[in-house]
Amino acid sequence: MRDVSIIGIGQTPVGEHWERSLRHLAYDALAAAMKDAGLETVDALFVGNMLSGEISQQSHLGALIADFSGLRGVEAVKVEAACASGAASVRAGYMAVASGIHDVVVCVGIEKMTDDVGSRLTTALAQAADTEYEGTHGISFVALNALLMRRYMYEYGVRHEDFAGFAINSHANAVGNPNAMFRKPITPEAFKKAAMIADPINLLDSSPMADGAAAVVLCATDRAREFSDKAVRITGSAVATDSLSLHDRRDPTWLMASEISARRAYMQAGVGPQDIDLFEVHDAFTVMAALSLEATGFAERGKGWQLASNGDIRPDGRIPISTMGGLKARGHPVGATGVYQIVEAAQQLRGEAGSCQISNARIAMAQNIGGSGATIITHILEG
Amino acid sequence: MRDVSIIGIGQTPVGEHWERSLRHLAYDALAAAMKDAGLETVDALFVGNMLSGEISQQSHLGALIADFSGLRGVEAVKVEAACASGAASVRAGYMAVASGIHDVVVCVGIEKMTDDVGSRLTTALAQAADTEYEGTHGISFVALNALLMRRYMYEYGVRHEDFAGFAINSHANAVGNPNAMFRKPITPEAFKKAAMIADPINLLDSSPMADGAAAVVLCATDRAREFSDKAVRITGSAVATDSLSLHDRRDPTWLMASEISARRAYMQAGVGPQDIDLFEVHDAFTVMAALSLEATGFAERGKGWQLASNGDIRPDGRIPISTMGGLKARGHPVGATGVYQIVEAAQQLRGEAGSCQISNARIAMAQNIGGSGATIITHILEG
Repeated sequence: MRDVSIIGIGQTPVGEHWERSLRHLAYDALAAAMKDAGLETVDALFVGNMLSGEISQQSHLGALIADFSGLRGVEAVKVEAACASGAASVRAGYMAVASGIHDVVVCVGIEKMTDDVGSRLTTALAQAADTEYEGTHGISFVALNALLMRRYMYEYGVRHEDFAGFAINSHANAVGNPNAMFRKPITPEAFKKAAMIADPINLLDSSPMADGAAAVVLCATDRAREFSDKAVRITGSAVATDSLSLHDRRDPTWLMASEISARRAYMQAGVGPQDIDLFEVHDAFTVMAALSLEATGFAERGKGWQLASNGDIRPDGRIPISTMGGLKARGHPVGATGVYQIVEAAQQLRGEAGSCQISNARIAMAQNIGGSGATIITHILEG
Repeated sequence: MRDVSIIGIGQTPVGEHWERSLRHLAYDALAAAMKDAGLETVDALFVGNMLSGEISQQSHLGALIADFSGLRGVEAVKVEAACASGAASVRAGYMAVASGIHDVVVCVGIEKMTDDVGSRLTTALAQAADTEYEGTHGISFVALNALLMRRYMYEYGVRHEDFAGFAINSHANAVGNPNAMFRKPITPEAFKKAAMIADPINLLDSSPMADGAAAVVLCATDRAREFSDKAVRITGSAVATDSLSLHDRRDPTWLMASEISARRAYMQAGVGPQDIDLFEVHDAFTVMAALSLEATGFAERGKGWQLASNGDIRPDGRIPISTMGGLKARGHPVGATGVYQIVEAAQQLRGEAGSCQISNARIAMAQNIGGSGATIITHILEG
């Protein structure tokens, strides 16, 4: 098995791209990553996407994006694991290079959520959960997370305002990220007063739907120097699953798949939580950030929320998270998010994060979550 | 890079499974394949599927099927390349094992097309083509193939009845396959009189929509003997793409991606067309069988149809195709088809094809096509 490195990164701004189609956005990110790597072609393309069939009435994105990006002929497929589709595409590319089958591949996460002609978005997002046992009851994806948050608050005696620090940190960090959707700070008062969406989740607990695409070019580490002098090594890569239904979990307030995939990634990389300099968490909802910090070993069970209150998650804290704004403020184009996280981690390790830069960033972790924790993918990167 | 073998195969009958949900069908095939391999668990699951989001309002099939099949925890993702999704899932599993990341994985192709509550099937299938440049004109997927067939007939002076042999051969072969959807022979007269669907494609040029699931368990070849004494080696595996739109091809009557992926697979396996004992072709429409035989080197350009007339494709012919009924008569549950082809090729190489058995079958090829030739995946298997 060969070691794998990231030799190129690219991304579009996250937001509402009314003037760009799905293929254009994907191309923009892909072309930027290939330019960054100094490449004009690659051996294969792996696309991460969740919703194109439902929202854009377009399947077959592998061939579509390869064709539109001047890569006609190369191997190309789409990989899907709900909101973890982005990291799943990087995982697929990682396997392709690790196997020796391909030397250089590009992985693109793409989601176009705003051109929702049939108003199917809420229904389509609920497909990340179990349609026959959850969706048929009319529960939306936000509502499922609201049940989870309510249970967490009940189990551990946590108040809603205790989650404010997650949203405040993400918004503060997004100010310095030119690709973020919401580049403005928020106050504890604003968090408290935000409109309720699905009790107890309010507007500022939630990440926004968005359009966006991000891409990484992967290469065998022993060839990385040929292409780039700022290659970032992927030292850990792991996927784990849990029950698709929330009600099937022994403990819904524990992200088992986060724990398992993080443990596998730590073992592969030969590191532990104490070695991680920054952590791109999947803060689709504030409660998910708390749960992720617990399952990955940064906080004890039921105490993840404390890291938001005590400043540990801030850029100068013990474990900086969502350093470029996270899902909350950079935005959450679902199938692209996992690639954005990895691109941002690479920016940090390359020292190219601008005013978001974490000092002495050497080892970064990114964790992408599909559904309410049914698929969790962890990557560890080293500069 | 490690060699990879198939150590277990499983399939459900193809047809209308009103009493089984998507998860049940997938489980049936997966469990059969794992039982065949004598395994109770695997390291990872790769799901091939095209339409579950549109037809069953369910994404996230990796976690769903892993969970429902007693594999909760394992790595699991869905791979999609339109009608080539099945072979794409096997290709993903192949990479996972070849890389050394996993030792034993299961690949499941699953499609449930009949529970089409919203009557979206025709629209959903058209998503295999370019929605913005083909679909917006209202052209269905059958109509696109009709344009292709008409052009082929015009270019090479072929009559509609010259394609009859493909459908007749597939139906004759399906009689001996207990899992086939249409186990009855058809006559040249029936072919001629069949109802027109999209001129010149009539009902008997076309494969039927269907429900079904098929699965293979893959393992590193050097460990295959631990599990099975009838392991089948995957000696060639390749994916190639072409333009998504038919109108963008230099020559729409030449399947460039078929040629490229077959050439790569031949090279990897160290064989050529003359060595292939049977060929599971993607006969979604009769014209596709003719085009595939040409692009893979079994017939000259414009002469693929002759192999249907002269008997070359029959079980005792020069290059037997669709030996268990093909897409035409076994049925075409789109995202499952590529896995069915590989399962059937393995049945032949294991000498377990019953009355469909090709004598002295030693090397088999399977080719799965997505869209009108935009993604083409070729596997070569050796017994």
